[in-house]
Amino acid sequence: MNASNIQVCLARRPSGWVRESDFNIVRSEIPRPGDGQVLLKNLYLSLDPYMRLRMDDAKSYAPPVEIGAVMVGGTVSEVVASRNADFRPGEIVFGMMGWQLYGLSDGKMLRRVDPALAPVSTALGVLGMPGVTAWVGLLDFGAPKPGETVVVSAASGAVGSVVGQIAKLKGCRVVGIAGGAAKCEYVTRELGLDACIDYRSGDLYAQLAAACPQGVDVYFDNVGGEILDTILRLLNPFARIPLCGLISQYNEADKSGLQNIRSLLVNRVRMQGFIVSDHLNRFPPALAELGQWYKEGKLKYRESVAHGIENAPKAFIGMLKGENLGKQVVKLV
Amino acid sequence: MNASNIQVCLARRPSGWVRESDFNIVRSEIPRPGDGQVLLKNLYLSLDPYMRLRMDDAKSYAPPVEIGAVMVGGTVSEVVASRNADFRPGEIVFGMMGWQLYGLSDGKMLRRVDPALAPVSTALGVLGMPGVTAWVGLLDFGAPKPGETVVVSAASGAVGSVVGQIAKLKGCRVVGIAGGAAKCEYVTRELGLDACIDYRSGDLYAQLAAACPQGVDVYFDNVGGEILDTILRLLNPFARIPLCGLISQYNEADKSGLQNIRSLLVNRVRMQGFIVSDHLNRFPPALAELGQWYKEGKLKYRESVAHGIENAPKAFIGMLKGENLGKQVVKLV
Repeated sequence: MNASNIQVCLARRPSGWVRESDFNIVRSEIPRPGDGQVLLKNLYLSLDPYMRLRMDDAKSYAPPVEIGAVMVGGTVSEVVASRNADFRPGEIVFGMMGWQLYGLSDGKMLRRVDPALAPVSTALGVLGMPGVTAWVGLLDFGAPKPGETVVVSAASGAVGSVVGQIAKLKGCRVVGIAGGAAKCEYVTRELGLDACIDYRSGDLYAQLAAACPQGVDVYFDNVGGEILDTILRLLNPFARIPLCGLISQYNEADKSGLQNIRSLLVNRVRMQGFIVSDHLNRFPPALAELGQWYKEGKLKYRESVAHGIENAPKAFIGMLKGENLGKQVVKLV
Repeated sequence: MNASNIQVCLARRPSGWVRESDFNIVRSEIPRPGDGQVLLKNLYLSLDPYMRLRMDDAKSYAPPVEIGAVMVGGTVSEVVASRNADFRPGEIVFGMMGWQLYGLSDGKMLRRVDPALAPVSTALGVLGMPGVTAWVGLLDFGAPKPGETVVVSAASGAVGSVVGQIAKLKGCRVVGIAGGAAKCEYVTRELGLDACIDYRSGDLYAQLAAACPQGVDVYFDNVGGEILDTILRLLNPFARIPLCGLISQYNEADKSGLQNIRSLLVNRVRMQGFIVSDHLNRFPPALAELGQWYKEGKLKYRESVAHGIENAPKAFIGMLKGENLGKQVVKLV
């Protein structure tokens, strides 16, 4: 056991791109569980794009992280001490313990993780919040039908990689968008998508039009900005756009506006922003189906693993810039 | 009976604002009904914003009007000759006879109009397509709940004026947006909305924020552009945006882009483009309820009436510029 807790706290609100100096590394004592509490040793920390929104004080779906507070984040943890009858030391759980080595919980929001099913870090990715986000967004809001064309941006990422694979399982033509040849190769060869467009490699519209000869029926949007605006020009009548993230907009002060809104009207498009935490009742069926696909070898994933809590800020910034491939986690022990 | 038919045909596709020279006035013989057909003498022609889209050859929900063809449009007509067992001379019907004095129909798409219920021109407005558009868009896609705040743009127009009144009937706080003091006064005093913002009179955001102290739950959008972008900043969580028209975008070559898309994500907004002709099964219940409200004096309307088919182009251009108040029609006889 480490001699002390280490926490990564928000030092200041970023202006534009996040910098490492926006965080403080703080040492403190390992807390002791009170009555009904468990002490958790965090094994893996999840790094996700939504955290960038929580660093701002703009109106959003959840309150911002306060200056000086521990950064919010999902964790896979081991119960190391328990004064809660529901949990025993040695159990592995998912929780929202944040960017730190140890944390206390009353157990109410913890979800048990089965180490026999898959590596426990998957509870932060393909078998966790990102996987459920993909499942809810694509199936509940995208409602793809066999033979339709589905496009997903950030297609090699934690959410996008699951979206693409589910869409293939549902019998769709699936086209990914990713940054760089290596990611595109991963998306087509390993994840099995029909095509993947490198958005950095030239005329995005022409490439997408060529990859989507029947137009686009579902666009699962993780990025917003110019890519969204380009897709609008390719939509079919009655297309659906689950709006899951706008990572292209999170850091840039210079935001280009959407030009092609007319497509939403003439094609009678449904564009639906969603946040997976509004849909907690969908977690059990989603995790059950994702787990089943995983066991059958139908759901692949990759992780980018940073090591040590002190490296979380750097890894987070790298993820926002698209340097990771697949789910970005920090291995803490 | 006029000695000849007069038709307004599309001479060229407009570039930017429509001009009268984009139309040709053509005289031709009055057609004779074939077997199963009726000859209709058009009494009123409807002028609607959607017609502007049909003048372009951009991809849209309906094919463009061909160069040289009669402009598309809804009409209230009298049956003057019939070789169709379902219709007798003297009956009044709604149809899509276009910008002309006479037309032939096989009767299949005609809807009988009851002259005893209301002036027959209302079949082009409050008791016709615009009224049903308001009813479907607000109730099916906007789904307002009592106590919620509904904002509607083009609030004095054919669709907007019905949207606002239905929202009031449903127990909402309702704020209109219109151009100029006269329209705003009409919207509040005659239609009974809680407030109306003149979008030409200064800081739109500040005025809307003051008129919507509880935020915006439903925005029925007829205009797009800067007004839509401003409303995005005022949305409540789980807001709905029925997207019915983008009249601000139809003519301007310089289109400013939407900046505030982030609101759709963080507020989990559903934005839904719709075209009322996709919802023909909703016309009977909509017209029944609108007719009932009208009989009870709960649904008011105004018309701007132009006279003579030759004046249709000028009246159409005026409507696109917002010079009308209420439903724009052309009285043909």
